[in-house]
Amino acid sequence: MSKAIVVHAARDLRIEEQAAPDPGPGEVRLAMAAGGICGSDLHYYSHGGFGAIRLREPMILGHEVAGHVAALGAGVSGLKEGDLVAVSPSRPCGTCGYCAEGRQNHCLNMRFYGSAMPFPHIQGAFRQSLVADASQCAPADGLTPGEAAMAEPLAVVLHAASLAGDLMGRRVLVTGCGPIGLLAVLVARAAGAVEVVATDITDFTLAKAREVGADEALKASEDALGGYTADKGHFDVLFECSGAAVALASAVPALRPGATVVQLGLGGDMTLPMQAMTAKELQLKGSFRFHAEFPKAVQMMQRGRLDVTPLITHRLPIDRATEAFELASDRTQAIKVNITF
Amino acid sequence: MSKAIVVHAARDLRIEEQAAPDPGPGEVRLAMAAGGICGSDLHYYSHGGFGAIRLREPMILGHEVAGHVAALGAGVSGLKEGDLVAVSPSRPCGTCGYCAEGRQNHCLNMRFYGSAMPFPHIQGAFRQSLVADASQCAPADGLTPGEAAMAEPLAVVLHAASLAGDLMGRRVLVTGCGPIGLLAVLVARAAGAVEVVATDITDFTLAKAREVGADEALKASEDALGGYTADKGHFDVLFECSGAAVALASAVPALRPGATVVQLGLGGDMTLPMQAMTAKELQLKGSFRFHAEFPKAVQMMQRGRLDVTPLITHRLPIDRATEAFELASDRTQAIKVNITF
Amino acid sequence: MSKAIVVHAARDLRIEEQAAPDPGPGEVRLAMAAGGICGSDLHYYSHGGFGAIRLREPMILGHEVAGHVAALGAGVSGLKEGDLVAVSPSRPCGTCGYCAEGRQNHCLNMRFYGSAMPFPHIQGAFRQSLVADASQCAPADGLTPGEAAMAEPLAVVLHAASLAGDLMGRRVLVTGCGPIGLLAVLVARAAGAVEVVATDITDFTLAKAREVGADEALKASEDALGGYTADKGHFDVLFECSGAAVALASAVPALRPGATVVQLGLGGDMTLPMQAMTAKELQLKGSFRFHAEFPKAVQMMQRGRLDVTPLITHRLPIDRATEAFELASDRTQAIKVNITF
Amino acid sequence: MSKAIVVHAARDLRIEEQAAPDPGPGEVRLAMAAGGICGSDLHYYSHGGFGAIRLREPMILGHEVAGHVAALGAGVSGLKEGDLVAVSPSRPCGTCGYCAEGRQNHCLNMRFYGSAMPFPHIQGAFRQSLVADASQCAPADGLTPGEAAMAEPLAVVLHAASLAGDLMGRRVLVTGCGPIGLLAVLVARAAGAVEVVATDITDFTLAKAREVGADEALKASEDALGGYTADKGHFDVLFECSGAAVALASAVPALRPGATVVQLGLGGDMTLPMQAMTAKELQLKGSFRFHAEFPKAVQMMQRGRLDVTPLITHRLPIDRATEAFELASDRTQAIKVNITF
Repeated sequence: MSKAIVVHAARDLRIEEQAAPDPGPGEVRLAMAAGGICGSDLHYYSHGGFGAIRLREPMILGHEVAGHVAALGAGVSGLKEGDLVAVSPSRPCGTCGYCAEGRQNHCLNMRFYGSAMPFPHIQGAFRQSLVADASQCAPADGLTPGEAAMAEPLAVVLHAASLAGDLMGRRVLVTGCGPIGLLAVLVARAAGAVEVVATDITDFTLAKAREVGADEALKASEDALGGYTADKGHFDVLFECSGAAVALASAVPALRPGATVVQLGLGGDMTLPMQAMTAKELQLKGSFRFHAEFPKAVQMMQRGRLDVTPLITHRLPIDRATEAFELASDRTQAIKVNITF
Repeated sequence: MSKAIVVHAARDLRIEEQAAPDPGPGEVRLAMAAGGICGSDLHYYSHGGFGAIRLREPMILGHEVAGHVAALGAGVSGLKEGDLVAVSPSRPCGTCGYCAEGRQNHCLNMRFYGSAMPFPHIQGAFRQSLVADASQCAPADGLTPGEAAMAEPLAVVLHAASLAGDLMGRRVLVTGCGPIGLLAVLVARAAGAVEVVATDITDFTLAKAREVGADEALKASEDALGGYTADKGHFDVLFECSGAAVALASAVPALRPGATVVQLGLGGDMTLPMQAMTAKELQLKGSFRFHAEFPKAVQMMQRGRLDVTPLITHRLPIDRATEAFELASDRTQAIKVNITF
Repeated sequence: MSKAIVVHAARDLRIEEQAAPDPGPGEVRLAMAAGGICGSDLHYYSHGGFGAIRLREPMILGHEVAGHVAALGAGVSGLKEGDLVAVSPSRPCGTCGYCAEGRQNHCLNMRFYGSAMPFPHIQGAFRQSLVADASQCAPADGLTPGEAAMAEPLAVVLHAASLAGDLMGRRVLVTGCGPIGLLAVLVARAAGAVEVVATDITDFTLAKAREVGADEALKASEDALGGYTADKGHFDVLFECSGAAVALASAVPALRPGATVVQLGLGGDMTLPMQAMTAKELQLKGSFRFHAEFPKAVQMMQRGRLDVTPLITHRLPIDRATEAFELASDRTQAIKVNITF
Repeated sequence: MSKAIVVHAARDLRIEEQAAPDPGPGEVRLAMAAGGICGSDLHYYSHGGFGAIRLREPMILGHEVAGHVAALGAGVSGLKEGDLVAVSPSRPCGTCGYCAEGRQNHCLNMRFYGSAMPFPHIQGAFRQSLVADASQCAPADGLTPGEAAMAEPLAVVLHAASLAGDLMGRRVLVTGCGPIGLLAVLVARAAGAVEVVATDITDFTLAKAREVGADEALKASEDALGGYTADKGHFDVLFECSGAAVALASAVPALRPGATVVQLGLGGDMTLPMQAMTAKELQLKGSFRFHAEFPKAVQMMQRGRLDVTPLITHRLPIDRATEAFELASDRTQAIKVNITF
C-alpha cells in the first residue's frame, strides 16, 4: 500500500492509502523521495482550481518529484534498482502534430501529473509509490532528492530562457521572486547575464534573490525601476514571474526598445500599456511548461552549473502535508517546500 | 512660394503659403508630386493628437510623400533634376546608441515628419516645395508618384513582416483592412504565405482585401474565426492592424501555439487574455516604423514584386485638402487618399 | 503484377515484374502516375552509387512520385479511391531522439525510398503499384501527376529556404540551374526576393532560369559575378546547387558580409577560401532533405504560389526508362524528366 | 617622448622613440599600462604578414591594450585623469552602409590598430603614450591593466558566441587552446554550457583548458573524439580556434546534425568534408572581430562573470619586446604574454 496526498476540494487535503501496482513493460516503480509544492498545487488546495479549470473529482496533487527505482518492468534498460531519478510529469502522446514538430508541451493529448484539465483528471505524483514510464525518468545520481525534485521548475525556467535567447552579457530583470522567479535569477546568472535585477513585494524573497545572485533586489512599486529609464530603458530581457499586470506595466519604461518579455506568471486577463509596448517594439512571449529541457535541468545541476539548494527552505513528511501547503503559501518565510515520503 | 497643409487644431486645416528655401549642402529641393494621408494625419485632423501626444502649435502634416528633384545642393550625387524620388520621413540622428546598433527607428533624437512628439513640432511634408537630405530620397523611376508615396506605409509593413520572420508556406491572418492591413495582405502574398485570411468590419475594405490577394476576407465578429480553432489553432502569424483589443483577443483561439502576433495597430491600453496567450506561448511583437526597409519598399514596387495601386482609391489636389481628409476617414469608400501638389 | 525500374549496376537498368501486395492497416495501395528522375537516381544509374555509398544488390529507383489511391487498408481516413496523392519518400521512425526534436530528416532509422544507404537497400517507388503508409500521402487534387511528383524536390528547396530565413526584399544568387537550382529560383521569387540572379554553364538551363523568374542568368565563369563585388558584395543569400567548389568560391566576392550560403549540391570534399569566408562572416549551412515541408510543397502548388510546370521538360513511359535516364543526364535539353506508369 | 614597438620586417622588431602629441577635441592621451600579444602581431613578427597581407612600411604593433588617462581633450566627459581604460582598437567610420546596419566590424573604412591592410598601414598601440578617441575607451576600474587588455580578445570570443546563439545547456567543443580557444572555454562556461570539451596538441594548453573550466581536454588526433560519435554526434557547437582544416574535419563526426561551427581560426584555403557537413546540415559561421561586444567584455570581467587572469602567463617590460614575442610564440609555456609600458 502507498500513501498519497489527495485534494477533494479547496482546503480539503487528505492522506489516502492506495494500492501500489507492478510496473508494466517499459515502466518502473519508484519509491518516491521528495516532492516540491508548486503554485498550481496551491491553487487546487486554496481555491479548488484556477480560472476555468476546476476540480470535479478527487485528485492526487504533485508534479515536481523524485524517487528511487524500486522495480523494473520488462524491457527497461539504463536504470537499476536504487537509482535516484527525477520524474518528468509531462506525458505527451508522441504522435500528434505538435509532438511531431518537437513541441511536445503543446501536445493535443497531454497527460500532465496533477492536472484537472481533462476529465477524468490526471492524477499526480505526491505518493509513496509511483509507476512511471522509464522514459519519464532522468537519472539524477549526485543530487539530493530535493534537488532532483527541482528539475521540473528548473526545466520550466530553462524553457523560458530559451525563448529569451542568448542571455550572455545582457541585462535581465525578474519581476516576482517566488520559486520560478528565483530560478530565473539563477538561470540568468548561469547563462552569463551581466546584470540581474529582481523585484518583489516581500523582504524575505528579496533577500533570497540577492543570495542566489541578483545584483540588486528591489521592493516593487511604481517607481522602483525609475533609475533604469534613461535613454529609453536599460534591460534587455524581463522574466515576468508574478502574473500581475502591474508588474509588467511598471517595468515597461525600464525595458530597452526591442526587449523581450517572457511571461511565466499566469494571471488572468491583463490590461497592458500596448501603445508604449508597441512603440518600443517589445516582444512579449508566453512560456508554458517545457519538454527537452527536463533532462538538461538535471544535468545542469549535476555538473554544478547552478545550485538550487538555497531555494529549498523546508522539508516535511507526507503526514504533515496540510502544514506543508500552508507554509508554501507564505512568501514571508518559505520558497520551496519539499514533502518527503 | 509654396503652399502647405497646416493643422492648427482639430478640424482646423489651412492651406498656407510659405517660402521655398534653397537646398544646402547634401540637400535637394523637391517639387512634391503626391502625398498619402495616414492614420496619424487623421488623428491630428480629427482629434488634435492621440493619447498624450497633442498639438501645441500649428504643424504641417504629411509623411508619405514623393516628388521630383527641382534643385540640387552642393555635393549631392546620384540624383539629377527631374528624378522622381520617394522621400523617407524618418530622420534619425545617426550617432546615438540605437542608431549605432542599426535600430534607427528607436533613435533618441528622431525628427520624423509631421510629428507633434518633440516641441517645437517636426513639420511635415504636405507642401509644394520641400528641402530634404539627399539621403532621405530613394530614386523611384518607373513608379507613379502615387506609388512612390506608398513607399512609407509599405516600409512600415515590411518592417512588421521582418519581425514575423519567414512567411513562406505559412498561414497568415490580418485583422483590420485599412491601408496598413491591406498592405499586410499584399506583403504576406509577396512573401509566399500559403494562406492569407483577413477580417474587418466594412464590406468595402473586405472586398479590397480579396482584390489584393486575401484567400478569404471575413466580417469581424466574435465567431468569425470559429472555423480555424481545431487542433489548438490554424494561423502561424497574425498582423494586428486594427488597434482594437477585441480583434486580437478574438483571434487568439485561431492562432497555433507559438504563433507570432505582430502588433501594428496603435490603440491605447489593451485588456488581453494573457492566460490563454501564455499557455499557447504566443509571441506578441510590437512593430514601430521602419528604417532600412524604406529603399527596399521602393525596389519591391519597381521590380513588380507587389502592386499597391489598387489601394490608392482617390486623388485630390492640395486645395481640396479638407475634403481629402474627410474622405480618408471613411472606410466605406476610401483606402488611401492621395493629395497632389 | 506491377512493373518496376530496377538498377542492377551502373548502366544496367531493368524493367521487372513484381507482385502488388494488398495494403495493411494504415496503408494504401497506389496506382503510380508519375515519377521524376532525380540526381541521385542518375548517380546510381551512371556510377552505381556516389561517394562511399554503393549498390550492393538490385534496387528499385525513384523517390519523386505521385499516384492515385487504388485500395485502402484498414483504418485509413481522409483518403478515398481515385484521389491523386504526392507520396513522401521520407519514412522516419518517429521515435528516435531526432524525430522527437522535430528533425525527422536526421532520423537514426530513416528508410528513404531508393536509397542504398542501409543494407538491405531501401527499395524505391518507380513502379506501377506501390503500397505506402497513408501518412506519407499528401492529397494533391487540382495538380497534374507531374506537378504532384515535383512535391519532393520542391520540399527539398523549401527546407533550404527555411535555413536561409526570410527572403523578402533580399538579393538571392543561385549557382547551378538543374532542377534544384531552378526550383530555388522559383522559391526565391515566391518568397519575395527583390533580385534573383542565377548562374550555370549551359544556355538551356540559363534560358529556363529566366523563364521561371530569374532577373538575370549568367554563364558561370570566374568573372561572371564581377559586377556584384563593390562595397564588399551584393547578395544576401546564395543557394549553391551545383556541388562544385569553384561555384561557391567564385561567388564569395559577390556575397555581402554575413550572407548565408545554403549548400544543396552534394559534391565530395571541397576546397574553400575560408580566410575570406571567415573575414566576411559568411554562414555556410548544409541543407539535407526535408520533413514538414512536404505537404507545404503540395499546398504551395495547389494555391498557385508557384508554377513548376516549366521545369517538366519530358514525359516518357516506364518501358522507355533507360531512354528517360539518358535524357535526364543531358542538361542541354532536359530539366526534369517524368516517367509515367 | 614615447617608446613604441615597431616591426620593420620579419624578425625585425625595434623599440623606437616617438613624439607624444596632445589630445584633440573628443580625444584622450593615455599612459599605456598593458598590451597583450596577439596571433596577428606574431604573424607580422614571424612572417612579415599573413596571406596576401604584407608589411610595406614600418608599423607599430599591438591592438590589445589598456592604459590610464593622462590628459583629456576638449569636450570629453565621463573620463578623468588616472582612470584605467580598455582601449578598443576598432575604429569604424560610423557612416558607411555596414556601420548604419550596426555591423561596424565590416566597416568599409575600418582603421584597426596594428593592421597592414590599407596602405599607409594603421599604426598600432604598443607604445607608452597613445592618443585615442574617448569613444574607444571603456572604463575598467576594478580590473588590473592586464585584465583590461584582455577585453579585446574576449570581445572577439563574445562576438563568436553570439553567432553560436544560446549556449545554456548545450555541449560545446573547442578545437585549439591558444588564447582565443581558452577564452572560448571560459565564455562557454560563463554562458552555461552543460559540457565543454577542448582539444589541442600541447599538454600545457590542455592543462590550462582544464584549469579554466573544460570538463575534458584531449590531445588532438584523428580518433580523439571517437567517443562522441554515437547517434550521429554529441556536440551542439564547435568553436574552431586552430585554423587547421584537420581540426574541423576530424570534429565533424562528433557534431550533432544541425550543429553550429563558429570559425575563429584564420587559416588559408581549407579542404572540408562538405558531403558529410551538408548531410548533417552543419552551420559553419565565420566570426571576425567584434563591435558592441567590447564594453560588454569589460563589464563581464568587472562583474566577475569570468576570470581571465589564468590566461596571462607572462608580463615583460617594453624593452624586452623581442623576448616577449618569442615567448608568445611558444605554446608549451605561454598563453597570453603581456607587455608593460
